[in-house]
Amino acid sequence: MRPSGRHFLQIPGPTNVPDRVLRAMDLPTIDHRGPEFARLGRKVLDGMQTIFKTQGPVFIYPASGTGAWEAALVNTLSPGDRVLMYETGHFASLWMELATRLGFEPEFISGDWRQGAEPDAICARLKQDSKHLIKAVCVVHNETSTGCTSRIDEIRAAMDQASHPALLMVDTISSLGSIDYRHDEWGVDVSVAGSQKGLMLPPGLSFNAVSEKALAAAKSATSAKSYWAWDAMTGPNHSGLFPYTPATNLLYGLAEAIDMLHEEGLDNVFARHRKLSAATRAAVNTWGLEVLCSNPHHYSDSLTAVRLPQGHDADHFRQVVLEHFNMSLGNGLAKLSGRVFRIGHLGDFNTLMLMGTLSGVEMGFELAAIPYRPGGIMAAMDSLCGRTPAVASLKKAAND
Amino acid sequence: MRPSGRHFLQIPGPTNVPDRVLRAMDLPTIDHRGPEFARLGRKVLDGMQTIFKTQGPVFIYPASGTGAWEAALVNTLSPGDRVLMYETGHFASLWMELATRLGFEPEFISGDWRQGAEPDAICARLKQDSKHLIKAVCVVHNETSTGCTSRIDEIRAAMDQASHPALLMVDTISSLGSIDYRHDEWGVDVSVAGSQKGLMLPPGLSFNAVSEKALAAAKSATSAKSYWAWDAMTGPNHSGLFPYTPATNLLYGLAEAIDMLHEEGLDNVFARHRKLSAATRAAVNTWGLEVLCSNPHHYSDSLTAVRLPQGHDADHFRQVVLEHFNMSLGNGLAKLSGRVFRIGHLGDFNTLMLMGTLSGVEMGFELAAIPYRPGGIMAAMDSLCGRTPAVASLKKAAND
Amino acid sequence: MRPSGRHFLQIPGPTNVPDRVLRAMDLPTIDHRGPEFARLGRKVLDGMQTIFKTQGPVFIYPASGTGAWEAALVNTLSPGDRVLMYETGHFASLWMELATRLGFEPEFISGDWRQGAEPDAICARLKQDSKHLIKAVCVVHNETSTGCTSRIDEIRAAMDQASHPALLMVDTISSLGSIDYRHDEWGVDVSVAGSQKGLMLPPGLSFNAVSEKALAAAKSATSAKSYWAWDAMTGPNHSGLFPYTPATNLLYGLAEAIDMLHEEGLDNVFARHRKLSAATRAAVNTWGLEVLCSNPHHYSDSLTAVRLPQGHDADHFRQVVLEHFNMSLGNGLAKLSGRVFRIGHLGDFNTLMLMGTLSGVEMGFELAAIPYRPGGIMAAMDSLCGRTPAVASLKKAAND
Amino acid sequence: MRPSGRHFLQIPGPTNVPDRVLRAMDLPTIDHRGPEFARLGRKVLDGMQTIFKTQGPVFIYPASGTGAWEAALVNTLSPGDRVLMYETGHFASLWMELATRLGFEPEFISGDWRQGAEPDAICARLKQDSKHLIKAVCVVHNETSTGCTSRIDEIRAAMDQASHPALLMVDTISSLGSIDYRHDEWGVDVSVAGSQKGLMLPPGLSFNAVSEKALAAAKSATSAKSYWAWDAMTGPNHSGLFPYTPATNLLYGLAEAIDMLHEEGLDNVFARHRKLSAATRAAVNTWGLEVLCSNPHHYSDSLTAVRLPQGHDADHFRQVVLEHFNMSLGNGLAKLSGRVFRIGHLGDFNTLMLMGTLSGVEMGFELAAIPYRPGGIMAAMDSLCGRTPAVASLKKAAND
Repeated sequence: MRPSGRHFLQIPGPTNVPDRVLRAMDLPTIDHRGPEFARLGRKVLDGMQTIFKTQGPVFIYPASGTGAWEAALVNTLSPGDRVLMYETGHFASLWMELATRLGFEPEFISGDWRQGAEPDAICARLKQDSKHLIKAVCVVHNETSTGCTSRIDEIRAAMDQASHPALLMVDTISSLGSIDYRHDEWGVDVSVAGSQKGLMLPPGLSFNAVSEKALAAAKSATSAKSYWAWDAMTGPNHSGLFPYTPATNLLYGLAEAIDMLHEEGLDNVFARHRKLSAATRAAVNTWGLEVLCSNPHHYSDSLTAVRLPQGHDADHFRQVVLEHFNMSLGNGLAKLSGRVFRIGHLGDFNTLMLMGTLSGVEMGFELAAIPYRPGGIMAAMDSLCGRTPAVASLKKAAND
Repeated sequence: MRPSGRHFLQIPGPTNVPDRVLRAMDLPTIDHRGPEFARLGRKVLDGMQTIFKTQGPVFIYPASGTGAWEAALVNTLSPGDRVLMYETGHFASLWMELATRLGFEPEFISGDWRQGAEPDAICARLKQDSKHLIKAVCVVHNETSTGCTSRIDEIRAAMDQASHPALLMVDTISSLGSIDYRHDEWGVDVSVAGSQKGLMLPPGLSFNAVSEKALAAAKSATSAKSYWAWDAMTGPNHSGLFPYTPATNLLYGLAEAIDMLHEEGLDNVFARHRKLSAATRAAVNTWGLEVLCSNPHHYSDSLTAVRLPQGHDADHFRQVVLEHFNMSLGNGLAKLSGRVFRIGHLGDFNTLMLMGTLSGVEMGFELAAIPYRPGGIMAAMDSLCGRTPAVASLKKAAND
Repeated sequence: MRPSGRHFLQIPGPTNVPDRVLRAMDLPTIDHRGPEFARLGRKVLDGMQTIFKTQGPVFIYPASGTGAWEAALVNTLSPGDRVLMYETGHFASLWMELATRLGFEPEFISGDWRQGAEPDAICARLKQDSKHLIKAVCVVHNETSTGCTSRIDEIRAAMDQASHPALLMVDTISSLGSIDYRHDEWGVDVSVAGSQKGLMLPPGLSFNAVSEKALAAAKSATSAKSYWAWDAMTGPNHSGLFPYTPATNLLYGLAEAIDMLHEEGLDNVFARHRKLSAATRAAVNTWGLEVLCSNPHHYSDSLTAVRLPQGHDADHFRQVVLEHFNMSLGNGLAKLSGRVFRIGHLGDFNTLMLMGTLSGVEMGFELAAIPYRPGGIMAAMDSLCGRTPAVASLKKAAND
Repeated sequence: MRPSGRHFLQIPGPTNVPDRVLRAMDLPTIDHRGPEFARLGRKVLDGMQTIFKTQGPVFIYPASGTGAWEAALVNTLSPGDRVLMYETGHFASLWMELATRLGFEPEFISGDWRQGAEPDAICARLKQDSKHLIKAVCVVHNETSTGCTSRIDEIRAAMDQASHPALLMVDTISSLGSIDYRHDEWGVDVSVAGSQKGLMLPPGLSFNAVSEKALAAAKSATSAKSYWAWDAMTGPNHSGLFPYTPATNLLYGLAEAIDMLHEEGLDNVFARHRKLSAATRAAVNTWGLEVLCSNPHHYSDSLTAVRLPQGHDADHFRQVVLEHFNMSLGNGLAKLSGRVFRIGHLGDFNTLMLMGTLSGVEMGFELAAIPYRPGGIMAAMDSLCGRTPAVASLKKAAND
C-alpha cells in the first residue's frame, strides 16, 4: 500500500515529473517514419538546441545518461586515447571507469569530493602535455553525488590558457535546465545530458550536444560503435527522423518539457533553483550540520548533500524519513555511503514543496535522534522571503 | 502560464485528487447497460455502504452535493412541511434557503458560526413540538464555512430524549471519509455527501444514504420530483444499473477511491486527519491568531478557519499566497467574507504537504504584513512528532 | 479480463471519448472560486454558445441529460401547465413521464416510433388551442431510441403558422455536435443537451440553451426549483463561476472538446456523420434488413436502428457480438426491446471504425444465425468511396 | 489537426499501446534505489522470463531493439570473431552491418527476402567450418521487413546436426508476445527483443535473454563495452535494481503488459495472432495480390507484406490511405521500397480492428487506382468466422 498523500521524491533525480509532461506521454505511439513524427522530431531537436544554447547538432538517444557518456567518448576517440578527467565525485569516477572499460586511457586528477573541478590543476596538467597526447578533458558540471558545481567557463579559460587542443566534454546531467549552461559560449565540444533531472521527464532519453570540432574529431575516431554513432543520426535527423526506432512517447514529453521551460523562461528557472538552494543551505547551517560542498563558489543549485555527525548513519535516517514522511532522499554514494544524505531541489519544484521537504528532514532528525538545532525551516523561510531571521528574533524576544 | 511545481490546493474541497483516482477515470467510457458496467455499479453501491457505515441503500447522483441536499428533502417531505435546521454557518444557511425555495418551511435555530449544533437547543425545540409538525431535523456534520463539527451522536440522543419522530438528515459533505461517521449506529435517516472532499474525487457525484424510516416517509411524500426520485433508482440499482445515464468515469474513480480508503483503513484515515488538524491549530495558536471554532469539542479535523486581526483583509492575504506560493486557500463565506481564511487539510493529504501548506501561510503573513508571531510551523512540527516544543526550547536556550 | 484490442463502443452514446479529452480531464482539480477557474468557466460558457449557435445564455449542470430535461420544464412552467409533446420514441416518452411526475400536464401526440415529429400535426393541434393553454411544445431532435431526426426548422414554421405563443423546447442530446443544429435561427426557446454524445465527453454534464422568451417565462414560472434554477446561475456565470461546486474535470474535457469540434469545423463534423450514416444504411439494405426509420427525410446521422426478422432476438444477437467481437451495440428500448438493435456512429468516429463496426454486425448475423444477405460491408465501402457497387460487379463478373 | 476518430496504427510496430499500459506509465517516477522500485524490478525481470520461456537471466536495457542487437554481440564475442548471419530481409541486413561496424566478421547466407532462414543452408555451412571459427549463428525469428518467420526449432536442429558449438542468437523483436517462442526449449543462447511490438509498449526498452553458454562466452569475450555489459547488470538485478538509471515509467508499463499477456494466456495470444494473419492473407489472395512471403511454412503471424503490381507505387498508396483513412501502413524497406506495403496485425489487436484495417486497404486500392479484385474483406470475414465463402456464394447466386 502506498501511503496517503503525495510522495516527496527529493532525490536529485529522477525528479517530480509534472502532470503536463506525464499526460503528454500518455498518448498512442505514432508511426516513427510518418509526417507527424517528423514534425515532432524536428521540434525536439530544435528545442534541445535552445536548452543547450548551441547552434550545433544535438543527438538524442533512447538511453540513460550513462549511454550518452559512452556516446561522447566512442564518437570522438580512438582506442588507447588519453583523456583527462577530474575526480569531482562518484559520477566522475563512474565516467572514468566507463572510459577505461571502453579501452581509453583516462588520467584522473584527484579531488576530495567537496568541491568542483579546479581550473588551475587542469591548466597545469595540459601545459605539461606538450605532445598533445591528451585528446579530451572531461568534467562533470554538477556532480550529483556531492552537490558541487564546476565552473565550466573557468575550465574553458584554463584550457585556452594552456593552448591545448583537447576536446572539452561536460556532463550536464544534473544541471541542464536547472543551472545556467552555455554550450557554444563556453566552447564545450560535447555536452552530455539526461532526461530525468532538470528536463522533468522520466529517465530513458539522453543527449549529446556537439561542436564542429567534435564532429571533425568523429571523422577520424576509430572506436567501434553503432548504436551511439553520430554519423548515422545526422541524415535522418535532418528531416526529424532517427536511424532506429526512437522512444516516441518520451519525445512527446520532451516537447512539452521544452515548452514549459521556455514558458517560465530559462533565466527564471535558474533563479528559482538558486533561491531554493540558498534556502536549503540556510536550513542546514541552522541545524548545525555541514553542507558537503566546502567551497561556496561551487555550491550546487540543484541538490545539497548534507553530512551527518560521526556515528550517525545517513541511510538509517533516510529510512526513517521514508517510513514516517513518505519522502525519498538521496543516499551517499561510494565512499560517502552512510555519511551524507542528499536533498534534490531541482526540476518541477517550488517554495512550498521545498518547505515540506525541509520540514521532513528536520522532523526526521528528531525521530532518528540525530543531534541538531531546531529551527532550520525558520531559517529557510527567512531566506525565502527576506524576513528578519525569525529564530534570532525569537531569541531576542525571549531576552527582552 | 501555470507556475512551476505542484499547486497546493488547500481549500476545504475539492481536494487533491490522487493520481490513482485520476488515472482510473482516464479510461474509455463503457456501455452503461452492459454487464461490465453492472459489476462496477454494484461495486460502488456496495462500497459506499461501507463508507457511510450503513446496511441501507445508498443512492448515487450525477450531481454536486447541492443536488443531494435537494434529493434528501424532496424524497421525504411534502410541500409546506416544517423542518428544523441549525445555523452552523454558511452551508447550513444555504441548505435552509434551498428548503425554502423548494416550498418547505424551515425553522432555523440561530448560531454564531463558531461552534457546532447544540443538542440541547434541538431537544428543547422538539419538546415544544407536541403535535410533531416538524418532519425533519437537518444538521451539517462538518460545517465547511467555519470548521466546526457537530456531534451527530449527541444530536441523535437529543432527539431520542425529546421522543420526537422527525427524520434526522445530516450533511456529511466535508466529513465523510475524513471524520468518523456512522449512519446506522447514529440513527441518521438521510446522509448527504459529495465526491470532492474526503472521497478524493473531482466534483460531480453526490450521495444519499437512506434509512428504512426515510424510505417509508418517501412513500407518502408528495413533493414533485423526478431526477432525484429514490423510487426510480431502487430497481435498476439492484442489478448495478441506473435509471438514467450515470457519470461513468467518475464512478471508475469512486471505485478506486473506496479501495484506497479501505487499504489505508478508515480508522487510520480518521486518525491521520485528526493529527494534521491538531498540528494546524498548534500553528495558529503560535501565530497568535484565533481559530474561528470557539469550542474545542467541535474542532474540525478536515479544515481550520482562521480569523485575521481587525483591519486585515483575508482575501488580500489569500491572493498574496496564491501569487507567491502557488497555493489556494479557502475564502471567508457570507458574513465571514474577508475576515477569515480557511485551510483545508483533508483528503489525500499528508504531513509534509501540511508543512508546505503552513509554511506558505506563515510566509504569507510576512508578505501581506499581517501581524503574527513567527514559529507556527515549529509548533506544528512539535505537534506532529511529539517533540518538546522547539520554540520554547529556543527561548530557553536564549535565556541560558 | 477485458478482451484484447480496443472495445468498439457502438451504442448511440456514451461515445468513444477521444484521448485528448480524457487526458484533459486527467489533471488536478482546481479552486472553483479562483481566477484560473473563472477563465475556464467563461471559455466553456462562451464555447457552448458556438455549438448551440446562439447568442443567448447556456447553463451547464453537473448532471445527466435527464436533469437538463427537468431544468427546461421547471424553470419555465408552473404546476399544472399544459405542454404539447410528440411521441417520437422512448426518450420522448420518458420526457413526457418526467413532465407528469413534476406536476405538468403533457399532451402526447402519438407516433409510430418510425419517423420524426410531424409539423402538420403540431400546427393543427396548436390552432385548436385558441386560449393558448399550451405553454410549451417539446420535441426530441434526434430520437435516440429509433434513429429518427425531427426537422426543427419545420416545427418552428408550423408553430409560426399557427401563431401560437408556446415555447419551443428541443432535446438535442444525441444530435448536438453531430447533426446541424441552430438554436437562434430556428427560434428554439430551450435546447437540452448532454455531454456524452456528439460532445465526445463522458456523461455527467448537461445543458440548457435559453432564449430571451424563455428567460422572460422563467420570471413568472412558479415551479419549485433550486438546483436547476437559471436565476441563481446568471450572476456567477457572468464571471465564469457557478452557484455551487461545478464538475471541474468534466469542464476541462468540455473545453478541449469544443476546441476539437472547431478545429475540424462544425460543417465538416456534420458531413462526416452524414457520410457514415449513409454507408450504414447501405449496409443494412444490402443485408436485406430494415432500417427502423421509415421516412428518409428523418434518417438520423448519428445512429441507425435495425429491425431483425420476426423470431430473432436482437438482445441475443447483441450478446453474441459482444462476446465474439468485443463490441457494444445499442439495445431496443421499451416496445422495441428485442426487436431492434442500434448502431451508434457518432462522436469521435471515422471510416475505418465504422467498417470494423459493420463487419462485426455482419459476422454477428452469421454467428447468431440471423438470416441476411452477405455483402453489407461491400455496399458500405461503395457508399464511402463512391465505387461502382462491388457486389453488383461481382455478380456481373460471375455472369460474364 | 489530427483527423477525427482513432488512428489505425497498422505498421508492424510500434503497435497500438493499450490504455492500461499507457495509464500504468502515467504515474510519478519513483526512487530507482528504493524498496518500491526493487519490487518492480524483480517483477519485470521475473516476468520477462515467463515471456521468453527461460529459466536464465533476462537483461533489460533503456534502449531501442537496435541496442539489444549490439548487446548480444559485444557481450559474447571478441573483435574479429566470425558470425554466420542469414539474409532474411532488411533487418537481418542491418544486424549484419551493425556487426561489421562493431568489428566482427559476419558471413551472410544470402536470401531472396521472401522466406525465412533455411536450416539446411546453415547446417551445410557449419559442417564446413571444421575449425569452429564461426562463433555465433544469428537469425531473425520474424523478419519485420518481409513478414517471413524462420523456424527456430529447425535452425537449432540444424546446428545440432552439424555438431557445431556456435552460439545461437535470435532476434525476436517482432515475434515475442505474438508468435510462440521458447528460448530454453529451442536452445537459444541470446534472444533479442524490444518493447514496442508484441509487448504492447512504446519503444524505449530492449532485452537480452541469455543462456548459461552465452554467459560463459561472455567471460572471455574481449569486445569493449560498458552500457551493454551483462556482468554489471547481474549484481544489481539480483535485488531488482540496475547499474544505471533505468527507464522507470516504461518498466511500469512492462509490468502491466506482462500481466495482460498472462491474463489472456500466451497460447490464446498466439492463436489470436494466427487467426488474424490467416484472415489477412485470405483478403490479399482475394484481391488478386501477392503476399511477399512465398513459403507458407514461413508465413508471419504478426505482419503481412503485400506486393503491388508493377508500375504502382506502394508509398503513394500508403499516403492515400493515411490521408483518407487515418491509417498508417508499413513501407517497403531498402530494396522493397515502393514495391510492397506491410500490414501490422500484432499486439493489442482484435477482429474488428483488423476488419477496419483491411477495409481501409481495399478502399485505398480503389482511391489509388491499384488494380484489384473487390471482396478481400469478405474473404477475411469468411476466414474469421468459418463462413462459407460469401463471395463464392454471391457468384453462385448470380449464376442461379
